[in-house]
Amino acid sequence: MNIRKIHHVAIAVSDIEAALTFWRDALGLELERVEDAPSQKAAIAFIPVGESKLELVKPTEEGTGVAKFLRERGGGMHHLCLEVDNVVETLANLKSKGVRLINETPIELEGRKMAFIHPKSANGVLVELYELTG
Amino acid sequence: MNIRKIHHVAIAVSDIEAALTFWRDALGLELERVEDAPSQKAAIAFIPVGESKLELVKPTEEGTGVAKFLRERGGGMHHLCLEVDNVVETLANLKSKGVRLINETPIELEGRKMAFIHPKSANGVLVELYELTG
Repeated sequence: MNIRKIHHVAIAVSDIEAALTFWRDALGLELERVEDAPSQKAAIAFIPVGESKLELVKPTEEGTGVAKFLRERGGGMHHLCLEVDNVVETLANLKSKGVRLINETPIELEGRKMAFIHPKSANGVLVELYELTG
Repeated sequence: MNIRKIHHVAIAVSDIEAALTFWRDALGLELERVEDAPSQKAAIAFIPVGESKLELVKPTEEGTGVAKFLRERGGGMHHLCLEVDNVVETLANLKSKGVRLINETPIELEGRKMAFIHPKSANGVLVELYELTG
């Protein structure tokens, strides 16, 4: 099977500490770490849930997709990330089936490859494909 | 640990067959079944991904939350469902911490209990708690 699991669900938040009062303190989930992700112009809190993670994403600059989403909607689920065996093959297959892609070639970063599918082709869901290459 | 996994991510769709051309036919996920859920005034396609599922939810009547969401946003991720050991205990704990609940007592249905947390308390995410009781 090419698609292994839900890698993460990304949630746009305006304040990570405030968000943690719900996800960690009230719900009792474990906070793995909070990380600056300058490549995404965001800070991200990683919260494991079973084999997946919730990622609380706080934009650190204006002008990113998450910053715009947050401004327009005030928060909520921003994207759904699926872990696949091979991002390049998956993208080629999707393209051959007429699926609209945001990234036709994967973004490569520290032992992983990522690519986004356009929400117009996925029922309004921004879908990220993720492959561990390290 | 009280929270076991992401049970499902629900995606609002206006047409299940059309949605399946992406999730099943292009992405290659397996369709487990499509089920009428009259209690939710919806038809639901269940699509396993690892230990979780994607649920494509098509409203069959006006006036439900999903129908409104679909009308306003045209689709997208509607709610995030977490499987917990004990919904009643989780709700009591959340309430004691000032979290706003949609259901203060769980909805019981065919071997399972469900309750929704208000998105105002969860960064704009509609969170469902789910317990298998069968």
